[in-house]
Amino acid sequence: MLKLYIGNKNYSSWSMRPGVLVRQAGIPCEEVLVRFDTFDAGSVFKKTLASITPTGRVPVLTDGDFAVWDTLAIAEYLVEKFPDRQLWPRDVKARARARSVCAEMHSGFGALRSHCPMNIEASLPDVGAIVWRDQAPVRADVERIVQMWTDLLQEHGGPMLFGDFSIADAFFAPVCMRLRTYALPVPAHITAYVERVTALPGVQAWIEGALAEHDFVPMDEPYRARR
Amino acid sequence: MLKLYIGNKNYSSWSMRPGVLVRQAGIPCEEVLVRFDTFDAGSVFKKTLASITPTGRVPVLTDGDFAVWDTLAIAEYLVEKFPDRQLWPRDVKARARARSVCAEMHSGFGALRSHCPMNIEASLPDVGAIVWRDQAPVRADVERIVQMWTDLLQEHGGPMLFGDFSIADAFFAPVCMRLRTYALPVPAHITAYVERVTALPGVQAWIEGALAEHDFVPMDEPYRARR
Ligand SMILES: N[C@@H](CCC(=O)N[C@@H](CS)C(=O)NCC(=O)O)C(=O)O
Ligand SMILES: N[C@@H](CCC(=O)N[C@@H](CS)C(=O)NCC(=O)O)C(=O)O
Repeated sequence: MLKLYIGNKNYSSWSMRPGVLVRQAGIPCEEVLVRFDTFDAGSVFKKTLASITPTGRVPVLTDGDFAVWDTLAIAEYLVEKFPDRQLWPRDVKARARARSVCAEMHSGFGALRSHCPMNIEASLPDVGAIVWRDQAPVRADVERIVQMWTDLLQEHGGPMLFGDFSIADAFFAPVCMRLRTYALPVPAHITAYVERVTALPGVQAWIEGALAEHDFVPMDEPYRARR
Repeated sequence: MLKLYIGNKNYSSWSMRPGVLVRQAGIPCEEVLVRFDTFDAGSVFKKTLASITPTGRVPVLTDGDFAVWDTLAIAEYLVEKFPDRQLWPRDVKARARARSVCAEMHSGFGALRSHCPMNIEASLPDVGAIVWRDQAPVRADVERIVQMWTDLLQEHGGPMLFGDFSIADAFFAPVCMRLRTYALPVPAHITAYVERVTALPGVQAWIEGALAEHDFVPMDEPYRARR
């Protein structure tokens, strides 16, 4: 039986990727939420994960007593275990391109990530406007994303980045959440893609979970004093 | 025909991974070095890459007119194109584990990366000693690497992380270079692994290339005033 250990659905952008992927692809998998805290050495979060993963981080997928950590490795493990689900595009070049953009996301977009942390329930358009005005690196990150999505939607004809839903859409779902929370200015066809991702049942289920949490983790709240 | 676009061999840790991989695995591939400069919008580096990759970054692998960017995506593309080379471990769990540690490297170890940038020709033990004394996050990064390599070498019996050479060793080759340049203190069995990686023909060829460059890129030299 597969188990996916995740952090708070409202905040954990890394967790959201495999969380959306398994749900949207209909992969049977139990979800275990490990609540974010201080991440100090003796914290409940770290103690809970200590016996599960050597990294002390979420997400982690366990298959029996075997643990796979890190979102990209989790995705590839699911690809191998469920070859019929077409988690990557079928065409070899489209698959390579999907891996390129996911790996680019995996190690990049640091400015967007740090200035606009994921916070699904929050609506922070004023913060977004200031970040957008002051942070050229955030504008550069969004510009690259707009260019990437525009190219892919055009090349594959939509509705998702590679036609049908794939790992790539799950990987960029947290970016969609950020664009919404901070109301960052993007062209209409990009907003339309964000809305299509938001409407996916796997994403809807995640958002509902996030809204039901009613949690407030100070470390993940640079912009709000309280909920 | 495959072409691999790389940066300076002395500095470009991202480039080193696929560079070592193709050489060590005997994959026929032409190497094209794009010299590091300021990375400004109008720079020769950016202008050279503009027609090749939308990210403006190296490494990039081209297969005819098709471009694959980002080290992890390049590695997976080579895995699919050369299934007989066993670039990942054969066993499904070992392969998942190899992907976990590579993905962990891909998005992590930020402190080690920023405080000890790769500089193959340089010998900076005094800098390393100060970094080690002052930077707890660097010590934490190295501690995690020591734990990871210790577990893998024990589980698979060496000489490489998963027994035979795999993508994982190529991914950690730049870390081996850093441990050497900054003489960071690690246990003897870790130093022994570093030396085995250094001795691989694919790594030796890369080091020889780095030493032959005689280049000095200020942006990549936080610690030296000149060569
Ligand atoms: N590259 C990792 C990153 C995982 C990560 O950083 N997770 C965060 C939560 S979103 C975490 O567990 N942080 C705990 C900590 O940093 O101590 C992945 O893709 O899974
Ligand atoms: N995640 C990318 C990172 C590539 C990267 O950052 N490359 C650096 C050189 S080592 C680069 O081209 N930098 C140019 C720039 O940042 O403008 C990969 O794995 O290929």
